[in-house]
Amino acid sequence: MEKKEMIYEGKAKKVYSTDEDDKLVVEYKDDATAFDGQKKGQITDKGEMNAQISTIFFELLEEKGIPTHFIEKLNETDILVKKLDIILVEVVMRNIAAGSLAERIGLEEGTALPQPVLEFYYKDDELGDPMINRYHIYAEELATAEELDEISELAFEINDILVEFLAEKNIDLVDFKLEFGVGTDGKIYLGDEISPDTCRFWDSESGKKLDKDRFRRDLGEVEGAYQEIIKRLTE
Amino acid sequence: MEKKEMIYEGKAKKVYSTDEDDKLVVEYKDDATAFDGQKKGQITDKGEMNAQISTIFFELLEEKGIPTHFIEKLNETDILVKKLDIILVEVVMRNIAAGSLAERIGLEEGTALPQPVLEFYYKDDELGDPMINRYHIYAEELATAEELDEISELAFEINDILVEFLAEKNIDLVDFKLEFGVGTDGKIYLGDEISPDTCRFWDSESGKKLDKDRFRRDLGEVEGAYQEIIKRLTE
Repeated sequence: MEKKEMIYEGKAKKVYSTDEDDKLVVEYKDDATAFDGQKKGQITDKGEMNAQISTIFFELLEEKGIPTHFIEKLNETDILVKKLDIILVEVVMRNIAAGSLAERIGLEEGTALPQPVLEFYYKDDELGDPMINRYHIYAEELATAEELDEISELAFEINDILVEFLAEKNIDLVDFKLEFGVGTDGKIYLGDEISPDTCRFWDSESGKKLDKDRFRRDLGEVEGAYQEIIKRLTE
Repeated sequence: MEKKEMIYEGKAKKVYSTDEDDKLVVEYKDDATAFDGQKKGQITDKGEMNAQISTIFFELLEEKGIPTHFIEKLNETDILVKKLDIILVEVVMRNIAAGSLAERIGLEEGTALPQPVLEFYYKDDELGDPMINRYHIYAEELATAEELDEISELAFEINDILVEFLAEKNIDLVDFKLEFGVGTDGKIYLGDEISPDTCRFWDSESGKKLDKDRFRRDLGEVEGAYQEIIKRLTE
């Protein structure tokens, strides 16, 4: 499958059209951004590492019956995916309080949540990706009630699958962001990526952060953290 | 019913115990605050006016079958209520975009919402009353799923009743805040107040603001707005 025109460039990925209308190529970049693009940098080999990590997660989820946009990994940085009409609602799943949740409801970072927390965010850079609820989503006509129910159910299932899989690798899945879209067949698929850019991974023993928080919070050893995730996922 | 000890003083009300364990007296004050108490002032006769306005709304809602804490108006500023164990979740209902909603999802103030929007806020001054969702409420054990379902259903019913009633008075009910609590009988009741302090009321013709936004935004004619609401509600 050949990459044709670049149709979109995001913060961490480029998207290309292909010979087939319903398929795209996603190229993972080394660029890293944080705080709505206010902090910018590069993480050496991040594109390659995230393409590899995302592939492992998408293959796992497909195997467990979750519909995803993943078709196949083409080379070091490129993944062939189904073309989706992206729903402009980011879904965040949380198992342990960290980041904005810890701040919002006044929980100490690291507090285990009694049950998983699901949050919706409006995917809108200008508004700063605000947290929203179901009624805001109806008001902005971002998704229907049925779509939200399906997305929520999938998000909880995905969380269960990933938490269990990562626990075996001695990794706590603190929280992660998902994006969904509607395929050309009208069905909902998981899109975007699953990587240390979009998840918080903590070492189960030491609590060491193995994700983009090392970049966001200037903790150092950023590349090492991504490499450690690959090592544990592939061992 | 005699007022005994003052057991709580809030921004706009004082609460007193009475001879009976399950009843309280709420005294409405003239004090006005905005922006989490950063802006402070007084609105002449607000206590009296809000006690009168709240009474009208609570009597209307009781008549329509909504369980509220209201028992009777005792004098100009004092209302006798059922004692509630207040649920620390504020419910905001919106019919027209204004205030924080307009900002959050990027709608121009005054945009009619295609359907009412319900929002939950964590009643916590230190955290700045953040918007939260159902899963945050579970995590903080502020209410059960059943309580949230009941509260939400009541909030939509209350909205329908108030919108219809106010439309006859040429008032648009833009949005309003509700608080609920559990009575000594274990049932859920509507608590707090319903007044220009907790609602946005706009004149249906001119769009003129007839509520606490006149104080918040220094629009002048604050007392006049509260008086106008009383006039329209009692005519």
